[in-house]
Amino acid sequence: MLNFDYYTPTRVVFGRNTEAETGKLIREQKCQKVLVHYGSGSVVRSGLLERIYASLKAEGIQYVSLGGVVPNPRLSKVREGIALGQKEGVDFILAVGGGSVIDSAKAIGYGMTNEGDVWDFYAKKRTAKACLPVGAVLTIAAAGSEMSNSSVITNEDGLIKRGYSSNYSRCRFAVLNPELTYTLPDYQTQSGCVDIMMHTLERYLNHGTNMEITDGISEALLRTVIKNAQLLKKEPENYEARAEVMWAGSLSHNGLTGCGTDGGDFASHQLEHELSGMFDVTHGAGLSAVWGSWARYVYKERPDRFANLAVRVLRVSKKDSEEATALAGIEAMEDFFRSIGMPVTLRELKVEPTKEQILKLAEKCSFGNTRTIGVVKKLGREDMAAIYRMAKG
Amino acid sequence: MLNFDYYTPTRVVFGRNTEAETGKLIREQKCQKVLVHYGSGSVVRSGLLERIYASLKAEGIQYVSLGGVVPNPRLSKVREGIALGQKEGVDFILAVGGGSVIDSAKAIGYGMTNEGDVWDFYAKKRTAKACLPVGAVLTIAAAGSEMSNSSVITNEDGLIKRGYSSNYSRCRFAVLNPELTYTLPDYQTQSGCVDIMMHTLERYLNHGTNMEITDGISEALLRTVIKNAQLLKKEPENYEARAEVMWAGSLSHNGLTGCGTDGGDFASHQLEHELSGMFDVTHGAGLSAVWGSWARYVYKERPDRFANLAVRVLRVSKKDSEEATALAGIEAMEDFFRSIGMPVTLRELKVEPTKEQILKLAEKCSFGNTRTIGVVKKLGREDMAAIYRMAKG
Repeated sequence: MLNFDYYTPTRVVFGRNTEAETGKLIREQKCQKVLVHYGSGSVVRSGLLERIYASLKAEGIQYVSLGGVVPNPRLSKVREGIALGQKEGVDFILAVGGGSVIDSAKAIGYGMTNEGDVWDFYAKKRTAKACLPVGAVLTIAAAGSEMSNSSVITNEDGLIKRGYSSNYSRCRFAVLNPELTYTLPDYQTQSGCVDIMMHTLERYLNHGTNMEITDGISEALLRTVIKNAQLLKKEPENYEARAEVMWAGSLSHNGLTGCGTDGGDFASHQLEHELSGMFDVTHGAGLSAVWGSWARYVYKERPDRFANLAVRVLRVSKKDSEEATALAGIEAMEDFFRSIGMPVTLRELKVEPTKEQILKLAEKCSFGNTRTIGVVKKLGREDMAAIYRMAKG
Repeated sequence: MLNFDYYTPTRVVFGRNTEAETGKLIREQKCQKVLVHYGSGSVVRSGLLERIYASLKAEGIQYVSLGGVVPNPRLSKVREGIALGQKEGVDFILAVGGGSVIDSAKAIGYGMTNEGDVWDFYAKKRTAKACLPVGAVLTIAAAGSEMSNSSVITNEDGLIKRGYSSNYSRCRFAVLNPELTYTLPDYQTQSGCVDIMMHTLERYLNHGTNMEITDGISEALLRTVIKNAQLLKKEPENYEARAEVMWAGSLSHNGLTGCGTDGGDFASHQLEHELSGMFDVTHGAGLSAVWGSWARYVYKERPDRFANLAVRVLRVSKKDSEEATALAGIEAMEDFFRSIGMPVTLRELKVEPTKEQILKLAEKCSFGNTRTIGVVKKLGREDMAAIYRMAKG
């Protein structure tokens, strides 16, 4: 196994009615004035925002609000948040929503504490030296941004979706109340479950060595999400199932499932980022639509790890060869995705890219043929195009 | 499942040669002068202390040292550390050793930042309001103190061993180099493995509800330790096995294996604390010597959870009844303890308490018949005495 650095300072306050503690949690951070950042009207309609405002008022904390964050959050909204935050002199950003809102909040945090253009960090031109404190009240279990060091933003100029990771942006706290996810449409719930699984799969399917304990934790997490995603299909207001998925979402991307590994593959994520940058699809659905094609393209490099996934997570019986077991596992995973209504091809995703669009996707994903992605198998521009073509269905 | 609060801010730097980063890690905490706290001469003889001093000097960090911490660390040494730390004006305490040294460092940290007698916290007379920053370079995988909020100290006046828990004392960082544990005597290695398993077992065997994901993580952790403890019996310098056990030790007691549960039982720990307080036995060995008797005394309250342990962790095949499966699991656990040379009775622990001593142990453990312990089954003074008697062997 490899050396690793594990750092998850986010305080998690998990369970029913925990959003009422938001004001107290910000007070403990010794912050005075908050930018409350959110997305659509659902947090307004549900009354959640009002409950949070009440909790801030109870602690004497001032606040300003900025809503309107969209899925695949936009750089323009980030710039709006930076300007507002600076004008109002806020010292804390509270994200109320899912991964898009938290990612946008982190980007605002970078922009408020570093000189120059915030996009530079996402364009990998500079590294951030700080981030304004950020906290989260989570309403969608999916991205894991509430405990991760990641943030992904889309620049409308060219529809370029890029991520930036830094420990400075780790949330000071995350309020996780599973009840807040009851009203999510099924498609969003299941897309979230795919995203959660992928954060672990990307690390589990790697090309280096692993720790047994990391593998065991990852397998337990994947089995838990598979079971509870299927349960939520039938019972969206099952508290226990919502809670299992929500906690899995945070653990899946906080670093735990990568300890001792080579850091993971993440090619499926990169391939999907271009898809949702160009076609604005839901991230989790985009992931399930490309994963199987990616897996078939690379599994012969590490049939052992794909076979472990098949047997230990998907309960596939061992076949005559490791490769056959691995392949049966990929099929079983696609069967699972279908069972929860998730696409396993681009056609099922309702995206039908032209030949030219596929070349454009691969061109963008390879940064103009200047980078490879993945570690199970290093993928260049032509590999990426091949996988997009395989994924068409 | 129950609401929970999860907070593990300790930065973990894991792997070969990581002790060389100690100075840099303290510099990042913006601290200037360190009390280096350690136990026996082994860290001197191995050259570890010199390497750490070199790392401090390289960062221009001043230091004073205080060695001589013993297993079941003494209050008198804590007082010595508080006096030295205050005289020298240190602003950071670096523990180089195992759980005893880290626990002693935390107690010094409390004593240096709170008015009054530090024992008050352990005697549950007051709560601490702060703790000087503490960091750890771990040399024994066992107690989990490097990521936990716990500290256990023995007051020589009456040989009273008491714990105190507070997030203030969580280590700022933990340097975990598995190679530093190569030279541990086998008995210490295996006692450590028992202690690690018990931190998870105490939470896994509870009387409330559980999260499936927490159960799955706990079961993976227990299986990993069982396998690697047996491996270390034959190959004490197996890096991978040392690493699996070391990381399991930190995860076992940082809160992860208790998320969503009722907090766990911890009766075995309380029963053992009195044993090691009175007879100065190794903590892990004391735990294995009482666990089976505790388990037989309480398992009928929650045969379902004991049966899960039997089937999922110890690979026991299901018997005709849940109770029979549970009992077979307890036997399998004792077989495992024996297989790594750990005692499963007080006689095997080489402790043969008289009738009067058993009454005294129960008297102390029940705080003079004023408290119960445990949640699987609440245990009063007479229950405690009965378990000590069952454990005699």
